[in-house]
Amino acid sequence: MTDDSIYHVDGDLVPASEATVSVDDRGFRYGDAAFETMRAYGGTIFAWGDHLERLERTCEALSLAHGLDASDLRTRIDETLAANDLADASIRLSITRGVQPGKLTPQPEVDPTVVVYANPLPRGGLEGESVWDGPATVETVETRRVPDEALPAAAKTHNYLNGTLARAELEGDADEALMCDREGRLAEGATSNLWFVRDGEVHTPTTDGPVLPGITRRIVLELALEAGVPVREGRYEPADVLAADEAFLTNRTWELRPIATIDGHEIGGGPITARLSRLYDERVEHACYR
Amino acid sequence: MTDDSIYHVDGDLVPASEATVSVDDRGFRYGDAAFETMRAYGGTIFAWGDHLERLERTCEALSLAHGLDASDLRTRIDETLAANDLADASIRLSITRGVQPGKLTPQPEVDPTVVVYANPLPRGGLEGESVWDGPATVETVETRRVPDEALPAAAKTHNYLNGTLARAELEGDADEALMCDREGRLAEGATSNLWFVRDGEVHTPTTDGPVLPGITRRIVLELALEAGVPVREGRYEPADVLAADEAFLTNRTWELRPIATIDGHEIGGGPITARLSRLYDERVEHACYR
Repeated sequence: MTDDSIYHVDGDLVPASEATVSVDDRGFRYGDAAFETMRAYGGTIFAWGDHLERLERTCEALSLAHGLDASDLRTRIDETLAANDLADASIRLSITRGVQPGKLTPQPEVDPTVVVYANPLPRGGLEGESVWDGPATVETVETRRVPDEALPAAAKTHNYLNGTLARAELEGDADEALMCDREGRLAEGATSNLWFVRDGEVHTPTTDGPVLPGITRRIVLELALEAGVPVREGRYEPADVLAADEAFLTNRTWELRPIATIDGHEIGGGPITARLSRLYDERVEHACYR
Repeated sequence: MTDDSIYHVDGDLVPASEATVSVDDRGFRYGDAAFETMRAYGGTIFAWGDHLERLERTCEALSLAHGLDASDLRTRIDETLAANDLADASIRLSITRGVQPGKLTPQPEVDPTVVVYANPLPRGGLEGESVWDGPATVETVETRRVPDEALPAAAKTHNYLNGTLARAELEGDADEALMCDREGRLAEGATSNLWFVRDGEVHTPTTDGPVLPGITRRIVLELALEAGVPVREGRYEPADVLAADEAFLTNRTWELRPIATIDGHEIGGGPITARLSRLYDERVEHACYR
């Protein structure tokens, strides 16, 4: 993202000025592409297997048979990290359906375009500091999350205008836009999953609704279960989280980030948020530094 | 789209091999872009004013203040037609939010990326032949049209996976995928508006539902009214069109295209479809050749 970054585009390491795709690429014309956002901690990609699996699910949902194997993708990521001399990084891997003959109807024969971006991101965790400045200020927005019947909610694609429009509604310098489904139930933030704690129990919107099955989300669910913290996936309304004792957001970049306020109502983190954050940091430590 | 096409990218005429955008462009990362598909007949852009107006509505819906005036955009289109030596053409104009600092949240300061594509498309109409081979075979699909509350239905954007997934459901060589809204009411084809005729009355799904206000659609509505053909915009179910006497699709490229079959049920054009087609051709003739 900085001018001297090296990108991996279509098999080659190139400087930012040459990191381009054809205007005929379906990734540009239609947002017809899958992506993953990952973290490298000390040179190790955290939860690589989960990312690969979700990427495959996204590509299946798009009928995008890219034909690339896991080791090929991993090599491109490792080459990008090495070229940028990065051990602690945020990584974005995109696979598009490439250029195809004809117009909108996708063709089975795919020559994918693969782009890897890597940007420095400090380690955080047990030994470092959080990447965010402070707890998140959150606003609920009018934009509704796209329903699963229109675009598979579990697919992570370049069709990101829904989240863009949600973010465009934010006033001032709020950090995240909280979206509901069409029925008015809480779904997720534009780029994060929502959590709240009430009476010692942890809640997060179920992926039965239009909610991305975040990998950080999966890990936090697992950590809560392992630690004996009661946790429930359900359908909730904004009033439920406003009445919560603690609330936080999760995604790959933020990990666990307490919510300071929602629509001006103060909520904040608390002992359970802190405990889950600590468990998450230990999980990263164990996976990437031992 | 052919290898020797000339594109207009970011202010310059360039050959296909150099027609690229940065991988950091929000048009690529998020499909964060507006577009229009137009026709040139004998060197005249048909309904240019309508396209400009819809483009502005799309950009307003995306809060995309591109800062380009109509004459600038028109110049780029005219230059592209001239460079490709085209009088009868299909034209696509895309405006993206460009590269911006930060991540998903759009910034007010926009340095847009403008891309113009022009491809030869025979004239059709009174003096020519239709661009389509024959009446369309249509299939209803499971993919539901994205609701207006999630992405404004009137906005024509690069977030085109909804239509892509609809088309991916087609079996064999069907021409168009017909989508319903979440309530099971007819919305539109992946790239076309739907029409049907029953008992001498013309029907088309209302834009109160998640239906793009097609410019060809607007013109056909106007022509029907002028000719005294009864026309109604409403909410319909698939059974309504299956029971129709005639049915057709409209978009800029196809103009009016009769529907041969829907899910294998034969429907076909008929006298009213033919009459509206003739009126449309006359409108083009009048607008572009006199």
